[in-house]
Amino acid sequence: MALLHEDRLFPAETETRKIAKRLYESIKTLPIVSPHGHTQAAWFAHNQPFPDPVALFVQPDHYIFRMLYSQGISLEALEIGTAQIAEPRKVWHIFASNYHLFRGTPSRLWLDYAFQELFGMTARLSEKTADQYYDVIEARLATPEFLPRALYERFGIEVLATTDAALDSLADHAAIRDSKWKGKILPTFRPDAVVDPAFDGFCENVEKLGAMTGDDTSVWRGYLNALAERRQFFKSMGATATDHGHPTARTADLGDKEAQQLFAAVLGGHSDAEQQELFRAQMLTEMARMSLEDGLVMQIHPGSVRNHNAQLFARYGRDMGADIPSPTGYVEALRPLLDRFGNEGKLTIILFTLDETAYSRELAPLAGHYPCLRLGPPWWFFDSPEGIRRFREDVTETAGFYNTVGFNDDTRAFLSIPARHDVARRMDASYLARLVAEHRIDEDEAVELAHELTYGLVKKAYKL
Amino acid sequence: MALLHEDRLFPAETETRKIAKRLYESIKTLPIVSPHGHTQAAWFAHNQPFPDPVALFVQPDHYIFRMLYSQGISLEALEIGTAQIAEPRKVWHIFASNYHLFRGTPSRLWLDYAFQELFGMTARLSEKTADQYYDVIEARLATPEFLPRALYERFGIEVLATTDAALDSLADHAAIRDSKWKGKILPTFRPDAVVDPAFDGFCENVEKLGAMTGDDTSVWRGYLNALAERRQFFKSMGATATDHGHPTARTADLGDKEAQQLFAAVLGGHSDAEQQELFRAQMLTEMARMSLEDGLVMQIHPGSVRNHNAQLFARYGRDMGADIPSPTGYVEALRPLLDRFGNEGKLTIILFTLDETAYSRELAPLAGHYPCLRLGPPWWFFDSPEGIRRFREDVTETAGFYNTVGFNDDTRAFLSIPARHDVARRMDASYLARLVAEHRIDEDEAVELAHELTYGLVKKAYKL
Amino acid sequence: MALLHEDRLFPAETETRKIAKRLYESIKTLPIVSPHGHTQAAWFAHNQPFPDPVALFVQPDHYIFRMLYSQGISLEALEIGTAQIAEPRKVWHIFASNYHLFRGTPSRLWLDYAFQELFGMTARLSEKTADQYYDVIEARLATPEFLPRALYERFGIEVLATTDAALDSLADHAAIRDSKWKGKILPTFRPDAVVDPAFDGFCENVEKLGAMTGDDTSVWRGYLNALAERRQFFKSMGATATDHGHPTARTADLGDKEAQQLFAAVLGGHSDAEQQELFRAQMLTEMARMSLEDGLVMQIHPGSVRNHNAQLFARYGRDMGADIPSPTGYVEALRPLLDRFGNEGKLTIILFTLDETAYSRELAPLAGHYPCLRLGPPWWFFDSPEGIRRFREDVTETAGFYNTVGFNDDTRAFLSIPARHDVARRMDASYLARLVAEHRIDEDEAVELAHELTYGLVKKAYKL
Repeated sequence: MALLHEDRLFPAETETRKIAKRLYESIKTLPIVSPHGHTQAAWFAHNQPFPDPVALFVQPDHYIFRMLYSQGISLEALEIGTAQIAEPRKVWHIFASNYHLFRGTPSRLWLDYAFQELFGMTARLSEKTADQYYDVIEARLATPEFLPRALYERFGIEVLATTDAALDSLADHAAIRDSKWKGKILPTFRPDAVVDPAFDGFCENVEKLGAMTGDDTSVWRGYLNALAERRQFFKSMGATATDHGHPTARTADLGDKEAQQLFAAVLGGHSDAEQQELFRAQMLTEMARMSLEDGLVMQIHPGSVRNHNAQLFARYGRDMGADIPSPTGYVEALRPLLDRFGNEGKLTIILFTLDETAYSRELAPLAGHYPCLRLGPPWWFFDSPEGIRRFREDVTETAGFYNTVGFNDDTRAFLSIPARHDVARRMDASYLARLVAEHRIDEDEAVELAHELTYGLVKKAYKL
Repeated sequence: MALLHEDRLFPAETETRKIAKRLYESIKTLPIVSPHGHTQAAWFAHNQPFPDPVALFVQPDHYIFRMLYSQGISLEALEIGTAQIAEPRKVWHIFASNYHLFRGTPSRLWLDYAFQELFGMTARLSEKTADQYYDVIEARLATPEFLPRALYERFGIEVLATTDAALDSLADHAAIRDSKWKGKILPTFRPDAVVDPAFDGFCENVEKLGAMTGDDTSVWRGYLNALAERRQFFKSMGATATDHGHPTARTADLGDKEAQQLFAAVLGGHSDAEQQELFRAQMLTEMARMSLEDGLVMQIHPGSVRNHNAQLFARYGRDMGADIPSPTGYVEALRPLLDRFGNEGKLTIILFTLDETAYSRELAPLAGHYPCLRLGPPWWFFDSPEGIRRFREDVTETAGFYNTVGFNDDTRAFLSIPARHDVARRMDASYLARLVAEHRIDEDEAVELAHELTYGLVKKAYKL
Repeated sequence: MALLHEDRLFPAETETRKIAKRLYESIKTLPIVSPHGHTQAAWFAHNQPFPDPVALFVQPDHYIFRMLYSQGISLEALEIGTAQIAEPRKVWHIFASNYHLFRGTPSRLWLDYAFQELFGMTARLSEKTADQYYDVIEARLATPEFLPRALYERFGIEVLATTDAALDSLADHAAIRDSKWKGKILPTFRPDAVVDPAFDGFCENVEKLGAMTGDDTSVWRGYLNALAERRQFFKSMGATATDHGHPTARTADLGDKEAQQLFAAVLGGHSDAEQQELFRAQMLTEMARMSLEDGLVMQIHPGSVRNHNAQLFARYGRDMGADIPSPTGYVEALRPLLDRFGNEGKLTIILFTLDETAYSRELAPLAGHYPCLRLGPPWWFFDSPEGIRRFREDVTETAGFYNTVGFNDDTRAFLSIPARHDVARRMDASYLARLVAEHRIDEDEAVELAHELTYGLVKKAYKL
């Protein structure tokens, strides 16, 4: 009896499944390269045990509580947003007795993977097995094998990138570096809080930025210098990439005087929505310019309407499962940046989307032409079996495989990392197997591609 | 020899097909719950025989005559829009000799189902078999077994909802209730004609509304009261739901004074397109407010550009097969309503779309978060095998199964009801079978889900 | 050993594959009807040998060099844009050693087809086999069997349409006609340069137009007369169709006076972008009016943002692989034209798209209603196995098969013509086989449909 079948996610058709299994066997034990995610360096710096099952599986995972919430379970009942969970076992029972809600979702696959592979569970989670799960998980979390560093090693992770605010001191990263531990935890430069005028506390953040670098960030030139210096600092701490989470993919390429005036306006705090959007747009182009200079790879994650649920945001703040995708255009939006840097072979910009219509219409044609562009893997709601399948089917014919960059787990849920990479490997093996079974490529090519999609392309694209 | 194969619509792959058949066997004889459609209460009130084959199959079914029209067959030749069909057999021959046009369409599956299951036909409809079909159908329609109530019972319908204008007296529903017949025919409150200023005769309709309830509908408060009273009346006649067919999903939440002024403007007859759109938007939020009070489930069917063919509309009026979908956004459109009522667990709003791009980008993420939102099944052109497959593939991973609400047949063609439900059951069984074959869920879960998708979820969502 | 498997592109499932093979066998040797493409009449007029492998396969094919360029290979290295290739063998080696980039793309399938079927290659192209390929291809190109007319015959082409500017003298077409050769090379009337005010040299082009026909094209009436005369001339040279490559699908139906004024404005050279767009829109409706008079079939290819890469355009000009699709709406855009001519059964307008979201949402519903509308096959980036599959899955259920028009190869790469038609035939056979295997149509119907999709519908739609 097992939670997971060894042939899961492979196509049912006999010959195709055999091919998929062969391809998967060739990649399943490759090291995990995780170039983009939201785990915390503090875990590895302090190497403290994870607390109880609820704090591990339910509280931090908005995939989980958004589904429970959508079915009428209150966030109060789940004790979301409380620093200390009062009745974790009670919350766990709510989760367990609603586990059927996750049927057909990737969360179910990721959870079962952790339950089986890490905690040895064999009976499905339910109201009936809730206590058994709770007890086993709680007990194991207290053992040395479940400390963050031990798990990192057990997962076979070769390198893991975190995502860090521009103002972050990276003290945890320094602590890791200064320790004798050999795990490779790299920071990523995420400047949203200092380049997006709509970000809470933008003006103070810009001031802090200046205080950190000694630049006068009240003027355009000093502000740009300070950003370049922070990038250098991140790079010195091992960063190879930046990340940008703007509402849209819009870019701009203003003249210097115009940029100065716009900066003065947004810093003055009297800017309107269009000026703020234009400033973000300008800053993407500035970041590209700096990337060309310092070699940091640029990631653009546009198109999420953040905190759509106003009541929840007022009460609980950000990241409450209420971010909703919106239509996202790239062709006109990226034009100013591409007009300036699009033909630079030394620049790498990795594009993501939450709008699948852009895959075949815009993203694959753009990445299949511009030397600086690459396509990031399916993001967020699309990091799923069907999402991965549609991504490959929609982009490969126009952009090929070599303009993609392998997999990102992009997760806050540390225990889901091996599960997510496993799903991606199985789905890529399945897609390649179909191409082989339909005689669109040969199997020796598929073997080579499977390795590239799992290991080669991500190392190259992210310079890891 | 048969028109329909018993394994139709199941995946070809042997093991997956076996699973699909087992799942289908477990649901195929479940009662039909039809919570949204356009059959006429009059049929069941008067229980008169359906007229000839043309009046039954061709004239009322815009799926049929739009396809014939697209291939150059005139509506005159089909005698569309004539009260009394002069030469039904001639029209039938046109239909029969063009039956190949429907290859690959769901109409073909629905028609063949009725031809075989109800009329015992075994040879495909064609010019050659046209007369045989005509004679058999005509003869059977005259028998007691083909009266509306008999068919309702034969189809295994448990409950059937019609769609009725706010000004409808519901006399036919009353007549059914007053008869001894046990069939359950429920009305649905569809107020488009009294809440959409662009609707033909809007101002007179609002006046009639006041006359019906004794409210002064020339003022905002009286108008709202009258609507609430009509809703109560519908509810007293068995209605559990309302339905709203706006051009967009836009909602608004105006202050009381602003709403009053807007109402005065649209009632004055001098409103512009933007004011009319804003009024419709405001009325969706008012309807949600009333739903929270009276418990009626709210259905929103946005995104159809009605009567796109101006010449045909001028000559034949509405519903001539010329309604064309258009891009439909939900994230910003629904925000005002959701800001106010989105977190109400006692409110149920069922969202439909004719823009498939919204499934994975907007609808599944919204329904996977907001407690009041559920996703309606594939609508209209997407009530089809591929449409159902894409719906499940696009929404399940983010919204799960339990934020969906089973199947709607949404039809004017009474005889197509069992056929449509059968197609949906087969496609859901096939989708679930794929999940089982790929070891993404277990078969015991699939059995449970098949029952939910066919019977459980629709009963719960529509409070039936 | 072979580059191509005889079962390529057929579904892996055993029974479905058998059906697909039977269907494919019934159509594989049907003549090629190529109603839309970009081969050059000069090839067939002069019947000169094609030059070296690079000038044949690499230089003219933007599918090829855009992929190489996207991976950092410069256009200089590929000698793109040079009249005389200095080191063709060196360029060939670059291409050969990067052949893996095309894995999973249709280019790979088309190239392998030509390599195997025309040049007898059996080992995959690579750095290792580059010279062998070069030598064989170069040698064969010098033989009489590889002259354009011989290839045309060998390919089994029944008719081949070129695309020709309105100002083209069609001298090459005349030369072909005057020769004894029996090949059927027809021109297509493409008036972009004289109806699009944004086209380089528009005003001079309009003047030349007048000079060609003797009309005063400085006034609206004379301009329209001149266009009608050129159409007549093209028709006299065998043309059966026109083609229109506008940025959008927008149409207009202005009053005569308004149209005159707009024409004066755009001809005056001081028009803004909106006026230019409106003029293009008006001209689509004028072209439709003329089509109704002269019977030429109208093709609309909207939605490509041409020359997106400004630096490349400045240096190399048009068609450098930097045309990127953009979102394209049809429902409102086509309304003015359809309001006027939509119900004309004698008019044929074939719609194309680069925005797949329009297939199921707009194009299939429109074509499934309006008698004048037909759907062109998947275009450009979507002329691919997955592109063809999605097209059939997305449109058939609403528009049926008979509102589509068979296949277009739309290519500049003469040698890819049989390969492209072969891919389309295999994919259509595979789609039909799935419908048969799932008992959605019967096999005798699939046989009939396979013939229609390959031969019948294109002949009828394009009046060939």
